[in-house]
Amino acid sequence: MNSEVNIKVLLAARPIGYPTEGDFTIAESEIPTLEEGQLLVKTDWLSLDPYMRGRMNNVKSYAPSVEIGDVMVGGAVGTIMESRTPLFSVGEIIEGSFGWQSYAALNGVGLRKVNPALGPIQSSIGILGMPGLTAYFGLLDVCEPKPGDTVVISAASGAVGQVVGQIAKIMGCRVIGTSGTDEKVRFIVDELGFDVGINYKKENVGVSLDSACPDGIDIYFDNVGGFVTDEVIKRINTGARIAICGQVSQYNVTEPELGPRNLFHLTKSQAKMEGFLIYAYESRYDEGLSRLSKWIKEGKLKYKEDIVEGIRNAPQTFIGMLNGKNLGKTLIKVS
Amino acid sequence: MNSEVNIKVLLAARPIGYPTEGDFTIAESEIPTLEEGQLLVKTDWLSLDPYMRGRMNNVKSYAPSVEIGDVMVGGAVGTIMESRTPLFSVGEIIEGSFGWQSYAALNGVGLRKVNPALGPIQSSIGILGMPGLTAYFGLLDVCEPKPGDTVVISAASGAVGQVVGQIAKIMGCRVIGTSGTDEKVRFIVDELGFDVGINYKKENVGVSLDSACPDGIDIYFDNVGGFVTDEVIKRINTGARIAICGQVSQYNVTEPELGPRNLFHLTKSQAKMEGFLIYAYESRYDEGLSRLSKWIKEGKLKYKEDIVEGIRNAPQTFIGMLNGKNLGKTLIKVS
Repeated sequence: MNSEVNIKVLLAARPIGYPTEGDFTIAESEIPTLEEGQLLVKTDWLSLDPYMRGRMNNVKSYAPSVEIGDVMVGGAVGTIMESRTPLFSVGEIIEGSFGWQSYAALNGVGLRKVNPALGPIQSSIGILGMPGLTAYFGLLDVCEPKPGDTVVISAASGAVGQVVGQIAKIMGCRVIGTSGTDEKVRFIVDELGFDVGINYKKENVGVSLDSACPDGIDIYFDNVGGFVTDEVIKRINTGARIAICGQVSQYNVTEPELGPRNLFHLTKSQAKMEGFLIYAYESRYDEGLSRLSKWIKEGKLKYKEDIVEGIRNAPQTFIGMLNGKNLGKTLIKVS
Repeated sequence: MNSEVNIKVLLAARPIGYPTEGDFTIAESEIPTLEEGQLLVKTDWLSLDPYMRGRMNNVKSYAPSVEIGDVMVGGAVGTIMESRTPLFSVGEIIEGSFGWQSYAALNGVGLRKVNPALGPIQSSIGILGMPGLTAYFGLLDVCEPKPGDTVVISAASGAVGQVVGQIAKIMGCRVIGTSGTDEKVRFIVDELGFDVGINYKKENVGVSLDSACPDGIDIYFDNVGGFVTDEVIKRINTGARIAICGQVSQYNVTEPELGPRNLFHLTKSQAKMEGFLIYAYESRYDEGLSRLSKWIKEGKLKYKEDIVEGIRNAPQTFIGMLNGKNLGKTLIKVS
């Protein structure tokens, strides 16, 4: 049906530490032929997110691993080119986990139709998709912010962190973000309106937190873990809420990293720490999306995307993101 | 008024690591003379608890440190010998934090009258006092047990742990306890009805937990921290609840101990970890005490006390308790 080929990025080897380009293979194949009940999607945008690093391991977790030789998992948005199901029509835009490939034959399960009138379609895998919803429910439901709370966010300029910080500002909180470059720190403060940004690679994080949070820390939204988290936990207030969204500092370690045993801070501060996955809030996605859209329209919520063209560039872009080279939500423009 | 003297145990030095008897001084003084509004209590029973180790440090925590030369803090129960306040009468039994001394002049704040008809008066600093209430609210409110849940408790034969385990059995849970001697393990299984006891000093805790918890762990009530907690966290189920009540393994370390960075287990299991202090539940103490008494009367709840006579023995008994030498709630019979 098409002279193009399907370009797929496959897992070639399980990485030890940070992935390298050799852990991926680029393969080409025919555009898939549909069976009854299927649809063909052409991928327009692919999302690259830290959680994908976990799927490259052969370890039991909340979602299955990618097998060697399989297409890498990933959220994407695309256009329906052909349909053999009455549920979807040619030309519709859909969002789902169709992986690192330029075409996919799908059975319709887990797909969401995207209304292109609401904004650029790639926002369905960004601010109006998994990262935006993760920020929304993770902050509002897990951390329950109140006006005047001091909120600290790690990986503050990332796909999730930038939204958490802006929602916290909307809620009337004082917001401090940690990032790994001066450019990112300037971005969250100057463009997103965070109160303070801390470059955790250059600054003494403890000293900077003391200065930025003279009244202690009420909420910590953690995407990173490691020593940044240790320094935050030392400074939590009574009744603090900590959301463990991700621990990207630990995803590429080759030897398990050790840190201080600090759980007694939870006792003495009567604090709560909670890990969460966005899927738990699926029944409330409409609520989240409608509030996020409203804030975008009101100009209260901005969203920075870091766009790279071409699916063949996905491996090196993903590796770069794990090393903090992106600024904002990492996207591959596939077609 | 009395030919006796007041025997007091004072903090002589801030311990480095485990306290030694040299960190305490035994002092004698006159029985205090009352001012208007005060009452004189003769201490009958003194409670010895791990939290007191924290008060010996000069570190900001949820409660003030004991100053060098001051009487050691501690919950106690005693008899009113003299009263210059209309609120209390001679002969009444009161419970409060009057410290490691045989007599105390008190102003009445923070005291609770004990009804000796309810049981032995020392239960007011045990099963019907702070340890019992800590178990009750920590398990029921923080951990929200459901029938069929697998519950693991560290320091399972201790003042709090033994009550947690029995309430968990009342709630229909499967209960596993960790303790440091075979005698304690036999006690929690044979006398208290725990399903499994693990001697963490002799067994490979991970292997024993795998065997005792084939369906994973839903609730962890932690009094200890350290490597036992690490092994539990690896095995938590989706939606697990972890109460951080104490971290006695860490109270006597001279160098901060390191452990694995394991917070991602909370994310992948969508689990909650919460530190709590019993004071937060003060408005509900009556509820807790009435349920605990009911269970005692019904024979569903037993309570093991480890009694040593004489306040002069408090330092060595306290040091022994921190080293796990007690079996059950540690009490000093003062008079």
